[in-house]
Amino acid sequence: MNFRSDNTAPAAPEILAALSAVNEAPAAPYGEDPWSHKLNEAFSALFEREVRVFTVASGTAANSIALASVTPPWGAIICHEEAHIACDECGAPEFFSGGAKLVLVGGEAAKLTPERVSEAVARNARGIHSVQPAALSISQATERGAIYTPVEIAALGKEAKRSKLAFHVDGARFANAVATLGCSPADLTWRGGVDLLSFGATKNGALAAETIVCFDLDRAEEIARRRKRGGHLLCKGRFAAAQLLAYVENGLWLKLAAQANEMARVLGEAAGPHLALPVETNQVFIKPGADGLAKLRAAGADFYDWGPPGSGEARLVVSWSQRSEDVEAMRGLLASLR
Amino acid sequence: MNFRSDNTAPAAPEILAALSAVNEAPAAPYGEDPWSHKLNEAFSALFEREVRVFTVASGTAANSIALASVTPPWGAIICHEEAHIACDECGAPEFFSGGAKLVLVGGEAAKLTPERVSEAVARNARGIHSVQPAALSISQATERGAIYTPVEIAALGKEAKRSKLAFHVDGARFANAVATLGCSPADLTWRGGVDLLSFGATKNGALAAETIVCFDLDRAEEIARRRKRGGHLLCKGRFAAAQLLAYVENGLWLKLAAQANEMARVLGEAAGPHLALPVETNQVFIKPGADGLAKLRAAGADFYDWGPPGSGEARLVVSWSQRSEDVEAMRGLLASLR
Amino acid sequence: MNFRSDNTAPAAPEILAALSAVNEAPAAPYGEDPWSHKLNEAFSALFEREVRVFTVASGTAANSIALASVTPPWGAIICHEEAHIACDECGAPEFFSGGAKLVLVGGEAAKLTPERVSEAVARNARGIHSVQPAALSISQATERGAIYTPVEIAALGKEAKRSKLAFHVDGARFANAVATLGCSPADLTWRGGVDLLSFGATKNGALAAETIVCFDLDRAEEIARRRKRGGHLLCKGRFAAAQLLAYVENGLWLKLAAQANEMARVLGEAAGPHLALPVETNQVFIKPGADGLAKLRAAGADFYDWGPPGSGEARLVVSWSQRSEDVEAMRGLLASLR
Amino acid sequence: MNFRSDNTAPAAPEILAALSAVNEAPAAPYGEDPWSHKLNEAFSALFEREVRVFTVASGTAANSIALASVTPPWGAIICHEEAHIACDECGAPEFFSGGAKLVLVGGEAAKLTPERVSEAVARNARGIHSVQPAALSISQATERGAIYTPVEIAALGKEAKRSKLAFHVDGARFANAVATLGCSPADLTWRGGVDLLSFGATKNGALAAETIVCFDLDRAEEIARRRKRGGHLLCKGRFAAAQLLAYVENGLWLKLAAQANEMARVLGEAAGPHLALPVETNQVFIKPGADGLAKLRAAGADFYDWGPPGSGEARLVVSWSQRSEDVEAMRGLLASLR
Repeated sequence: MNFRSDNTAPAAPEILAALSAVNEAPAAPYGEDPWSHKLNEAFSALFEREVRVFTVASGTAANSIALASVTPPWGAIICHEEAHIACDECGAPEFFSGGAKLVLVGGEAAKLTPERVSEAVARNARGIHSVQPAALSISQATERGAIYTPVEIAALGKEAKRSKLAFHVDGARFANAVATLGCSPADLTWRGGVDLLSFGATKNGALAAETIVCFDLDRAEEIARRRKRGGHLLCKGRFAAAQLLAYVENGLWLKLAAQANEMARVLGEAAGPHLALPVETNQVFIKPGADGLAKLRAAGADFYDWGPPGSGEARLVVSWSQRSEDVEAMRGLLASLR
Repeated sequence: MNFRSDNTAPAAPEILAALSAVNEAPAAPYGEDPWSHKLNEAFSALFEREVRVFTVASGTAANSIALASVTPPWGAIICHEEAHIACDECGAPEFFSGGAKLVLVGGEAAKLTPERVSEAVARNARGIHSVQPAALSISQATERGAIYTPVEIAALGKEAKRSKLAFHVDGARFANAVATLGCSPADLTWRGGVDLLSFGATKNGALAAETIVCFDLDRAEEIARRRKRGGHLLCKGRFAAAQLLAYVENGLWLKLAAQANEMARVLGEAAGPHLALPVETNQVFIKPGADGLAKLRAAGADFYDWGPPGSGEARLVVSWSQRSEDVEAMRGLLASLR
Repeated sequence: MNFRSDNTAPAAPEILAALSAVNEAPAAPYGEDPWSHKLNEAFSALFEREVRVFTVASGTAANSIALASVTPPWGAIICHEEAHIACDECGAPEFFSGGAKLVLVGGEAAKLTPERVSEAVARNARGIHSVQPAALSISQATERGAIYTPVEIAALGKEAKRSKLAFHVDGARFANAVATLGCSPADLTWRGGVDLLSFGATKNGALAAETIVCFDLDRAEEIARRRKRGGHLLCKGRFAAAQLLAYVENGLWLKLAAQANEMARVLGEAAGPHLALPVETNQVFIKPGADGLAKLRAAGADFYDWGPPGSGEARLVVSWSQRSEDVEAMRGLLASLR
Repeated sequence: MNFRSDNTAPAAPEILAALSAVNEAPAAPYGEDPWSHKLNEAFSALFEREVRVFTVASGTAANSIALASVTPPWGAIICHEEAHIACDECGAPEFFSGGAKLVLVGGEAAKLTPERVSEAVARNARGIHSVQPAALSISQATERGAIYTPVEIAALGKEAKRSKLAFHVDGARFANAVATLGCSPADLTWRGGVDLLSFGATKNGALAAETIVCFDLDRAEEIARRRKRGGHLLCKGRFAAAQLLAYVENGLWLKLAAQANEMARVLGEAAGPHLALPVETNQVFIKPGADGLAKLRAAGADFYDWGPPGSGEARLVVSWSQRSEDVEAMRGLLASLR
């Protein structure tokens, strides 16, 4: 019973099939193939406005290239202290941006608020001797499984505008957030002031397909340059494009995310008093204490501890591909801890 | 009849099939899966010594990460003036290395000689005011389709050692070179003093699978860090590993390369007096003049002009997947120019 | 009455005179002149062991070049959250290091403890996904005017060694610390495990003379390269060397620092109950409330507010050149607030 | 008799005196002092239009910061293959720009022509796979002592505009060029399309004072940031400002340069048939063969060989401070070789 991460899941059959479908004949390289071109259209339709889409090989690349395109080397990126860009990318945003600084901010459930952002800007914008706040980056859903509503996004977007920050969303689990909220992707992005979205597919059914969705078309040329220079302009771009087309066409992305979310909800319910945070997507944070975690592991469950050492807290991530018998078994285990 | 580049080819069926084969169940992420582990073994066997293998998303990434791991920011990389790293990677080596300098050297058929390398080192190693020669990078096969023999590699390796240069090989078409020479991959690499090889598979049958083969194990940790930081440590690494395993197991890589080379040989023969350079791999450089090129295009052939504008020279690249009727037709066209 | 900073002070007459003394005849450029050579000897004597000295144009350059020489781009530098390198250098350490990350740690009077350093290392050293703790940087004296004793330095040095961190000291006010402690400069540096010291002279009597004192001779070549590349290898190096020689010869540096410290002590005493922190060097932190600060300003005193807005706290810095009548007047003003 | 370089000269007495004059009282730090403010006015008057002036510690810093402010990391800087930025700055332009590429172009007497620039742009602007030509940098006077006339500057400026290149001049010996031409500094810069000038004073009488003169005011903020981040915003900026004010006030800069030029002219005349290039500034290139050079050295002359090893060529640089008896002696020596 592996609940370590949704990145352990295989690829969805629909997406694997799409690879074969584009493999019939030669095609132009470096994103000049028909499928890559179609991507811009498909995402423009999905987001209800013209966008430019840049596929890359990883979420780290998507985040870092997007942020570097809106942050000068002497700029600061405001983000949560648990953000993936801060903790899990080995300094990739600093590398791509030429040495920008991440300004870390606290907040419940790994969420930022406009007040905290405003404070961080004020603390750091002190003229020539300090770095210059240039971007705001949030994760949707957050590293603690929480969701920003359209209203919250709009409030952050307003603050970003006021403080002259570009607004970036790390959407490694964007699908899970949209599936829960049931709103339009546009409501969670550009309508709320978002300039750039890292749109993830790998955790939710693709083999390797992440993309930058660029709402600020003036940034497109710079993103294209930074992508090439980072080695992320793929020679046979059609294989990445095909994955993403299969992912968003016919709502596959939301179907898979909804499956995962629903199984997570079931586990959260089972955890009852040991639930540490509300279950809003496919991540379940439980706090049954060290003994409880030991019991789960003894029964064959695999997952990561979370929080400070010794906190007795853990994270369970449910993927779209999780077997129902595993979920059922885990439900029983969690219930038995109560 | 598309002879623009081998990067327009589809993926080989064996490689596509390998993706399905590893998609059955969850697997550990970030290269901790069984297939990624097996890669090190497979390549160690292939190269007849212990190596460390790092898959990345593109040849640009392989070249740049490899070179950055042996070149300090104030270092110089000696390469041919037509090298891919110099002309076609939008400055990626400079980006990954933190601003190293490429020192460009001339040479027939895009090949370097020990003498030219030695001169370039002498010209550039002038103490604290100049950059410090740190690496030698060659392409095998070269951008003009030429091959370095084991003896030539060893001579360059000796010069690299003498001048304290790390020795890197851009092997985007390494398979084509090995297929022609019929020697061991070891003879073209570490036995001749090569420290790092960018081993390409994408042009010769993979979807997207390039890898750094590291012979100098002391560099492995730094390469791992730079790969992660560049966004090239893939979440679901097994899909890249599976492609490469299928590629080298059972000699598929050499079979595909030999196919392409043979078809290129046929075209070269047909070109006869218009052949600009010997055909040693799957690239054919012809010089039938502007009129000749116009005739070929009028007859439906698609390819790139090469050399300075107006030189009447062109490059034909034959991929493993080229249809025999296209090759036959092209042969006829070339013969008709004579 | 200007107590804003010691960087407003003029240059000491002895140091200005030294410039004329070296201006008689031509001299070799780029640090190959006799005075630059003598610097290594003078500092080796001062620090009681062989050192290498690198003059640069600013403390920011000294800190950044020193840190970049011991921190890989994927490395982390542990420092206090109020450190000059974190707050006042516009991201220069990130720039020179190629994007390293500063890990910020709290602590009284801007001081770090081995425990806090150890925690920060543990929190950040999580394998390939996180940055790699590589350096520890402290300020001596701190940004809050506090001093590390030889015993405290040795304890931090031990922790640095245990955690495989290079140990750097930002000594913009190193002279003030040594003057107070009365110990050997060696006791505050290499004897306690310090690898690199930014040795400041500008705030304490020079025109523009900062230097990196390198105790780890293996780093010297890299520092030399980074200095040149940063534009800090001065063409007429003798003028910087002459300032530093005059500064350390005959104990001028300690005489000037002791003067400043003594005047600060007097002001601290006068502040009495409004003193926020003990006066250990030439910085006086007072907290007389907003009204108190307003009174001081109305009486002609000039200084910076300190701490969060509205805290009613301020910093007074006394330079070696402060006029005794100004100090006397300030003493009276401070006493009147009690 | 030292003719190695003008960077061996002492400082002019007027400039040394200016340091004492600004040392009377405290002054605001970081360029907020009255002398730094006055610099902008003095240079605006000198250049007959509003400019912004940024003092830095070296010519390398001036060149690199200026170029980085107009060249994106994926950009190319077109320059002569003998340019100081290409050969003598240890890759500083690559460092400050985040990895831009220098495209090297040939040309007589180290001069560029619009045709060569245009060719280099065409060769390198090949879309996303190549770097993007972004800046043109020339040296005035060149590394071979040649001068660009106002007409030549304007022609290069026109080509820069046509090719969308920012236009930078490395003016380490700008004074020598202006002294020879007798034209307005404006005619050699912004009137001809120059955007940024590295204005040198150190070689011609200052201790350490180089400055970026910025004609494109939109770049000023970025230059200020990059200067701070490079450690070149000096704490006690008044001492650099004072040098530059003394240098340009009362025409000292042109007086000193004219002195040096005149002595060089005398030497050039003496060299007669051995003169390799016309003497246009204070550099004299002679080619008396290996024997001739040996004779000069045997007689006590000190200078650098120039050109390829064994070419029998040498460079003599005459500084403003050269003693007339040395020049007289050298004249005799050169004449004796005829």
